[in-house]
Amino acid sequence: MDLASIYHRTGDNYCYLYQDDIFHIRIRTKKGNVQAITLLYGDQYDFAGHRWQTFFLDMQRTGSDKLHDYWQASIKDKQKRLRYGFIIKQGDEQITFTEKGFFPFIPEDPGYYFCFPYIHKTELFKPPSWVKETIWYQIFPERFRNGDPDRNPQEIAGWGQDEPAISNYFGGDLQGIINSLDYLQDLGITGIYLTPIFYANSNHKYNTIDYLQIDPHFGDISLLKRLVHECHNRGIRVMLDAVFNHCGYLFPPFQDVLEKGDQSAYKDWFHVHQFPLKEGSAFHYETFGFYEDMPKLNTANKAVKDYLLNVAEFWIRECDIDGWRLDVANEVDHAFWREFRSRVKAIKPDCFILGEVWHDSMPWLRGEQFDSVMNYPFLSKSLQFFAYDMIQAKDFVEDMTSIIQAYPANVNEVLFNIIGSHDTPRVFQETGFRLEKIKMLFTFLFTFPGTPCIYYGDEIGLDGGSDPGCRKCMEWDSEKQNLELKDYIKKLIEIRKSTALLSGSSSFYFLKELENCIAYYHREENEIMMTVINNNNHDVSYPLPFPLKGKKLTMPMTCQEYAAESHDLTVNLGAYESILLHFSV
Amino acid sequence: MDLASIYHRTGDNYCYLYQDDIFHIRIRTKKGNVQAITLLYGDQYDFAGHRWQTFFLDMQRTGSDKLHDYWQASIKDKQKRLRYGFIIKQGDEQITFTEKGFFPFIPEDPGYYFCFPYIHKTELFKPPSWVKETIWYQIFPERFRNGDPDRNPQEIAGWGQDEPAISNYFGGDLQGIINSLDYLQDLGITGIYLTPIFYANSNHKYNTIDYLQIDPHFGDISLLKRLVHECHNRGIRVMLDAVFNHCGYLFPPFQDVLEKGDQSAYKDWFHVHQFPLKEGSAFHYETFGFYEDMPKLNTANKAVKDYLLNVAEFWIRECDIDGWRLDVANEVDHAFWREFRSRVKAIKPDCFILGEVWHDSMPWLRGEQFDSVMNYPFLSKSLQFFAYDMIQAKDFVEDMTSIIQAYPANVNEVLFNIIGSHDTPRVFQETGFRLEKIKMLFTFLFTFPGTPCIYYGDEIGLDGGSDPGCRKCMEWDSEKQNLELKDYIKKLIEIRKSTALLSGSSSFYFLKELENCIAYYHREENEIMMTVINNNNHDVSYPLPFPLKGKKLTMPMTCQEYAAESHDLTVNLGAYESILLHFSV
Repeated sequence: MDLASIYHRTGDNYCYLYQDDIFHIRIRTKKGNVQAITLLYGDQYDFAGHRWQTFFLDMQRTGSDKLHDYWQASIKDKQKRLRYGFIIKQGDEQITFTEKGFFPFIPEDPGYYFCFPYIHKTELFKPPSWVKETIWYQIFPERFRNGDPDRNPQEIAGWGQDEPAISNYFGGDLQGIINSLDYLQDLGITGIYLTPIFYANSNHKYNTIDYLQIDPHFGDISLLKRLVHECHNRGIRVMLDAVFNHCGYLFPPFQDVLEKGDQSAYKDWFHVHQFPLKEGSAFHYETFGFYEDMPKLNTANKAVKDYLLNVAEFWIRECDIDGWRLDVANEVDHAFWREFRSRVKAIKPDCFILGEVWHDSMPWLRGEQFDSVMNYPFLSKSLQFFAYDMIQAKDFVEDMTSIIQAYPANVNEVLFNIIGSHDTPRVFQETGFRLEKIKMLFTFLFTFPGTPCIYYGDEIGLDGGSDPGCRKCMEWDSEKQNLELKDYIKKLIEIRKSTALLSGSSSFYFLKELENCIAYYHREENEIMMTVINNNNHDVSYPLPFPLKGKKLTMPMTCQEYAAESHDLTVNLGAYESILLHFSV
Repeated sequence: MDLASIYHRTGDNYCYLYQDDIFHIRIRTKKGNVQAITLLYGDQYDFAGHRWQTFFLDMQRTGSDKLHDYWQASIKDKQKRLRYGFIIKQGDEQITFTEKGFFPFIPEDPGYYFCFPYIHKTELFKPPSWVKETIWYQIFPERFRNGDPDRNPQEIAGWGQDEPAISNYFGGDLQGIINSLDYLQDLGITGIYLTPIFYANSNHKYNTIDYLQIDPHFGDISLLKRLVHECHNRGIRVMLDAVFNHCGYLFPPFQDVLEKGDQSAYKDWFHVHQFPLKEGSAFHYETFGFYEDMPKLNTANKAVKDYLLNVAEFWIRECDIDGWRLDVANEVDHAFWREFRSRVKAIKPDCFILGEVWHDSMPWLRGEQFDSVMNYPFLSKSLQFFAYDMIQAKDFVEDMTSIIQAYPANVNEVLFNIIGSHDTPRVFQETGFRLEKIKMLFTFLFTFPGTPCIYYGDEIGLDGGSDPGCRKCMEWDSEKQNLELKDYIKKLIEIRKSTALLSGSSSFYFLKELENCIAYYHREENEIMMTVINNNNHDVSYPLPFPLKGKKLTMPMTCQEYAAESHDLTVNLGAYESILLHFSV
């Protein structure tokens, strides 16, 4: 056995409370290097019979990536205090892995073992319960719909005619969104995420001037109240974008420091290297990236904290919004986010907190900061496989396994999965305008663990490259919409909503890929929802690895039913076809 | 190369701010499997010249344990945002390790790399600056000194005559400690840690009845004030023991619940499974271990939190104490400790917070909870090697390397190192009463990274086995004290205090062991303090691995000086001898 490659450390994705009464323990070993693992555990104080009382549980291999196998065991409501170790077997070899190292015997002293000292239910990672089932839709308000021409910016380009540019306007607004709620409801959307809507002198509004005012081109506070109210009536939640890492250049406190230098009451609101803030082309303060018009806020400063947390509370209290998406969340200090969470949850316990983090996000997902992050690794890997044909099915399955093994199962269930956003080229563009590829991407989006989000217009085949291309006006002329794609997505949404097990993740497994055809399933008790996606330019017969003779199979996309007459079943897929299968075993 | 055994994940001991302007990055590889590693890093937004701007830094192999080599690089005040990866070399092979996996080339897109998004100085792990240099002394008050017979418990056993038992009393008190301050000052102590002194019906006081009252057998609040004042006059800090995981059976709120059941105003102060709390021999509430007389406090309850945090503040505010040692700290929820830290530091920013955690403590040492933990792994490994001869030098060096690699360097510098406590058999007992073994243990304690703590009486050769044996009365008759040991320890303390580099840890390295003789050194710039400990029953000549010709060496224990006449120097040690060497290179 290759001991050097075995990894476990208590906490994070390796050891966590999954639900009130279910505790997960995982371990990672070198691929193919270990045959079986038994978890040994007990309460370290339990010496009934003068011997440490221990239990044994076989671990299950839940997946493999390029280099590793991952194993998991679930402990159900047995006890509050856990000492545990791993009895690892390969052929005749057996070794016990503890916090104190590896031993050829099973140490009797609980002090040797890994320790999860006490399971506090208050420390359960607990996103709002509605999130897991939500079908998200991301809206870039300036480009979604112009519902009130009276609010148009002075100069606007032609909707659907002119190309989006870095700084042009088209006149989209909140009234436009309100006018589109029937459309969203019909599609099956249950949550909308709006990129920033507060006052700012740009079309994207990521450079806030006034956090307490709706941008006048979009609407006003009463219109936002109406929007939220109308959404709630339709069972749709509303999430706004909080840009707290930095402000806009015209944010009054920043202007005050620009003007008064170290005499400004706001001088500690920013990260100033020296005064005056600007000399010629040089600027002496921290910014987002190297953009001098986006000064970084000093979120460790009490006044700044009070100001921003009040903003966070204000829009919940006044307009009853359901979530905050946090822009550049990773560059703000953790203490700020902890306080953010406790203040926000105090006034609306089921408010959703979603961070923008493009990389490994474990440090924000320990339960006391975010409920979720935007799943960019999902986006880039999915495009590499389905859109670009850059990687093969085997690599894709391995890489997606790395991604889901990086987080606890209850985190995976609410990860904000995307295949496009206002910061990335559109899926239509990326697939080379190939509908069959887009369908595979959406199939994957709606059947993989995590919550799916549609970037506005992707559902009807809107195209566009990198920003600003991907911020094109929504196409409302149904004759110009790709209705085949829209119907396909509508169907996926229906299935997702009617099949609770697609919202779980604790029993999700990949099956063996066949050429470029991938397969995976969600399982709960005896019920299975299986997905097969054939990313080949030819037919494939995928053999079902379950004994199904005498069982009934349904194919939810086509509503077909099938009675299995033998155990050896295969599912036949055309080139680029996806098939979902629902059955019991 | 064995890629499956390479480990790095952003955060914790693998990636942290060491000082305001120094950032450490570490990686672990399979032992002997990798020749060299170069760190590649840059600011992800820095595309001057339309290409991501990167820097390269050779990593240093800082140690090895049984299975792994550990590598480290320090980045000094270059930038606030970090994307980084590892270029790993072995023979002709070269591979780049990023967050997205391993690549045979060096990816150009910063999005592939590990990300430390922003270095916030407010997130620096920052214990009080005085801690690093402190020489601790742990006192079990009931057994240290009887300074006021008027405060004796009703029945007391004979000081120094009777054996300590689970529940007998000897009359030690706070006045006794005050009377001993000259002794402690003379020894060189700069911090005392008292096990609990609040009102409780036991000799150990870990079952608190009143958190706001000094136990009347020990003294009263004015006496504690005097004790702290007298200590401060002598440059000695005072740390008290906070038992917040559980209370005593007679704690009035618990008595109230016992009596009134679910009608009690305190019913949510505990973890109650059902009412009434007790039926016959069964009890229906959570406890410390399985001790029904130590009910676990519900520290997630607001009233309990307010009560305990007020206690924590009270003794700082009223008596100016310098630190809290937190009993069974690992079984209390993290949110409680975060609030504890922020409340305590708000009223005394340099108050020390020390947790009792026997196992891997990383989750409490991320900067927002504890300043340190009691280093039990240090205790057990040191005894295994020096006292029991259970393991060989090679194992010892490897295991101690695992221990220091498990934490950031700034954590290691303040770990509370012990070779005995009120919960473990005394070192005199454990070494089989062998002075030469005890001396080695103390040499190691005073020269290894971390802060040394002497358990009262160990310095004069007090003996005793497991609790209650290790809680014997202090021996004050100097004729019965082991003065040779005491002088030896005094000398070690002097050296520790006069040699700042013994308080650092960022440049600490083990040297190759020679049979059972271990060697290691601390380095700062050109200055080196080297320690050689010969745990053999015969002489050893240890070759110095530094070119020292023409240099002056001092041996601080004996104040000898030596001028090196050649590069090939050896240090000759008798059986069980320790030698310290101070020199420049």
